[in-house]
Amino acid sequence: MKAISLLGSTGSIGTNALRVTASFPGAFRIVGMSGCKNVALLADQTEQNHPEIVSTGDESSCAALQALLRQRNYPMAQTRFVHGIEGNIEVSCHPDVTLVLAAITGAAGLLPTYRAIEAGKSIALANKEAMVMAGQLMKQKAHEHGVEIIPVDSEHNAIHQCLRGGRKEEVRRLILTASGGPFRETPREKLLSVTREEALNHPTWRMGRKITIDSATLMNKGLEVIEASWFFNIPPDEVGVVIHPQSVVHSMVEFVDGSILAQLGVTDMRIPIQYALTFPERWRSPLPPLEIHKHARLEFYEPDREKFKCLDLAYRAIRSGGTAPAVLNAANEVAVEAFLHDGVAFHEIPEIIEAVLNSHPRYEASSLDLILRADAWARKKASGLADECRKARGPQKQ
Amino acid sequence: MKAISLLGSTGSIGTNALRVTASFPGAFRIVGMSGCKNVALLADQTEQNHPEIVSTGDESSCAALQALLRQRNYPMAQTRFVHGIEGNIEVSCHPDVTLVLAAITGAAGLLPTYRAIEAGKSIALANKEAMVMAGQLMKQKAHEHGVEIIPVDSEHNAIHQCLRGGRKEEVRRLILTASGGPFRETPREKLLSVTREEALNHPTWRMGRKITIDSATLMNKGLEVIEASWFFNIPPDEVGVVIHPQSVVHSMVEFVDGSILAQLGVTDMRIPIQYALTFPERWRSPLPPLEIHKHARLEFYEPDREKFKCLDLAYRAIRSGGTAPAVLNAANEVAVEAFLHDGVAFHEIPEIIEAVLNSHPRYEASSLDLILRADAWARKKASGLADECRKARGPQKQ
Repeated sequence: MKAISLLGSTGSIGTNALRVTASFPGAFRIVGMSGCKNVALLADQTEQNHPEIVSTGDESSCAALQALLRQRNYPMAQTRFVHGIEGNIEVSCHPDVTLVLAAITGAAGLLPTYRAIEAGKSIALANKEAMVMAGQLMKQKAHEHGVEIIPVDSEHNAIHQCLRGGRKEEVRRLILTASGGPFRETPREKLLSVTREEALNHPTWRMGRKITIDSATLMNKGLEVIEASWFFNIPPDEVGVVIHPQSVVHSMVEFVDGSILAQLGVTDMRIPIQYALTFPERWRSPLPPLEIHKHARLEFYEPDREKFKCLDLAYRAIRSGGTAPAVLNAANEVAVEAFLHDGVAFHEIPEIIEAVLNSHPRYEASSLDLILRADAWARKKASGLADECRKARGPQKQ
Repeated sequence: MKAISLLGSTGSIGTNALRVTASFPGAFRIVGMSGCKNVALLADQTEQNHPEIVSTGDESSCAALQALLRQRNYPMAQTRFVHGIEGNIEVSCHPDVTLVLAAITGAAGLLPTYRAIEAGKSIALANKEAMVMAGQLMKQKAHEHGVEIIPVDSEHNAIHQCLRGGRKEEVRRLILTASGGPFRETPREKLLSVTREEALNHPTWRMGRKITIDSATLMNKGLEVIEASWFFNIPPDEVGVVIHPQSVVHSMVEFVDGSILAQLGVTDMRIPIQYALTFPERWRSPLPPLEIHKHARLEFYEPDREKFKCLDLAYRAIRSGGTAPAVLNAANEVAVEAFLHDGVAFHEIPEIIEAVLNSHPRYEASSLDLILRADAWARKKASGLADECRKARGPQKQ
């Protein structure tokens, strides 16, 4: 039985992970879980899985969760209730745990994942921001502690699978596929006026709000380029991006002998989650298979880098290295959050990120502390720029 | 340096193999070569590679080859000249050889390949008929002698690559792709009147005449289903066929966890040949890479089994097992040869094969002798049927 902790159990990846573990009765033991504010769902998950430890976002949500569970006559002594970053670290580092699913979105997921690596836990990594911010450090730590990190992101998971077909030095390049997002065919000038609702309407994947906006700007693919470069130790210029609207091919690896291996599947995150949780084995999935003969048409073409400036900003950050990817990521998180609250316009997202990158002095990302400082600096800078955008736009409709 | 013999050096696979070996100077030593009647080409290849031993189809072509080489002042003492099946066996079993490329089309290639396995040589297998006729025996022999057989056929080569992504028991099914051949979109009733020239006009691959006709009838795919079933020890009903006109995806493997791995590449046989010659390594290919972003559209759909009856005949033969696949293969070789010489019509090819299968009593394929007897019986039977077709059609134009 695999003893696992789920960082971010109430999110899109977390809930899908619990569907995966529930489909293999007796195979997994959920030792720890952590959510943020969705106390009702966290209460349900606690009741269903009886974990040793549960963490929430803060003290008040922790109290609310316990009150709710007491109402439902949950055997409170079975579970320890903690909160905040320290709570997340307790969840990920619980002594019983052998595998941590790191599925907290954004920079908040970095520290508990990093500590779990130091504690020698295997990692199923869904938090791409952790790898974007501190990829080199995390890989180094994982190497030191003999820890395996398996990517959950469908693209990196696909690449992990394809890389089994050859040795590291036989790889010519990685090819990340991108659905192209909801604005794939939107004329460039129309991007000036797209709404939040339009940006949240992803054509193929159902995901969280942050990543859905990142898909619309192609920053998601930019972050994935950075993640892939760190993860697989491949220079950024050997990581390509191709638009593939059907999202059937999840990514590819081109080898030096001219063969390309690709991973295909239905667009259901339970497939890469299950792969990451069961690696090095493959377990029988209850999902219906991809019926490739009914997918009459798979298209591939180059992304429009003029229209989606976030992609090149990401390449610029990873080529620059050091703390630049962390700065890019932080500025993006702030800009997207501001967009989701009607603070900035869609086209202002890359503008804010570029301005933050331009004013960032490059540092080596030689410690978590330096990375987190660069992250904090970039957030402050980006918030200031978002405020300026907000003011320039004047009062908004609710 | 790898010491190799090429069975069938003057054919499509053989000449491509020599282009591959020539592109890695110092990496390969051509110990033996065999051709059939193309003495001029065999003379050129002998001059270029100075093999220890060369075999031709018969005594007269052997004499012609030596005469030609003497005229060109080839140092005759360097090379031994042999002929016929025994000659081929000497080429494949030469003591210096470690790897045999088995690229003689049809049943004629079986014996020299089989003997090479018994002699402990690694095999790069391009002769699918050998695996169709005697797959179980060959696999058994290879296992006994610790011999690795790597498939050269682009589909099986693709599957070999994709299988590296999981364990045998994790495979749900193999998916062979088929271009659909020149008559993919030809209405069923028009197949009654197609010409040899139309059938020889393959849309994506440049290959020999026999395999090109097999592609037009889909028997090529049927033989590949049998080959795949033997090769990878997978029940025939777990080997699927999907039409993919662009021939970019060369085949796929679906795993039990819902992931499909696919191999893609340019339609150039040098890629699978090189893979088979360099396995387990991948060497840098001089070929231009597949530019997937320029392949705007890849299509997949089910084959029309009513129109292409050869596919179901092949499934029937492999499900029946024993000598039935050898009988199917022999009847097909005779029918195709008759079609290529205007003896029978295109639609009569499956009719002849079906009639031969119907009148064949099933035997265990427990020895090469039994298989070769079934092969001979089927050839005779099919020739008789082809003669009847020829007579029924009356005198033909030349």
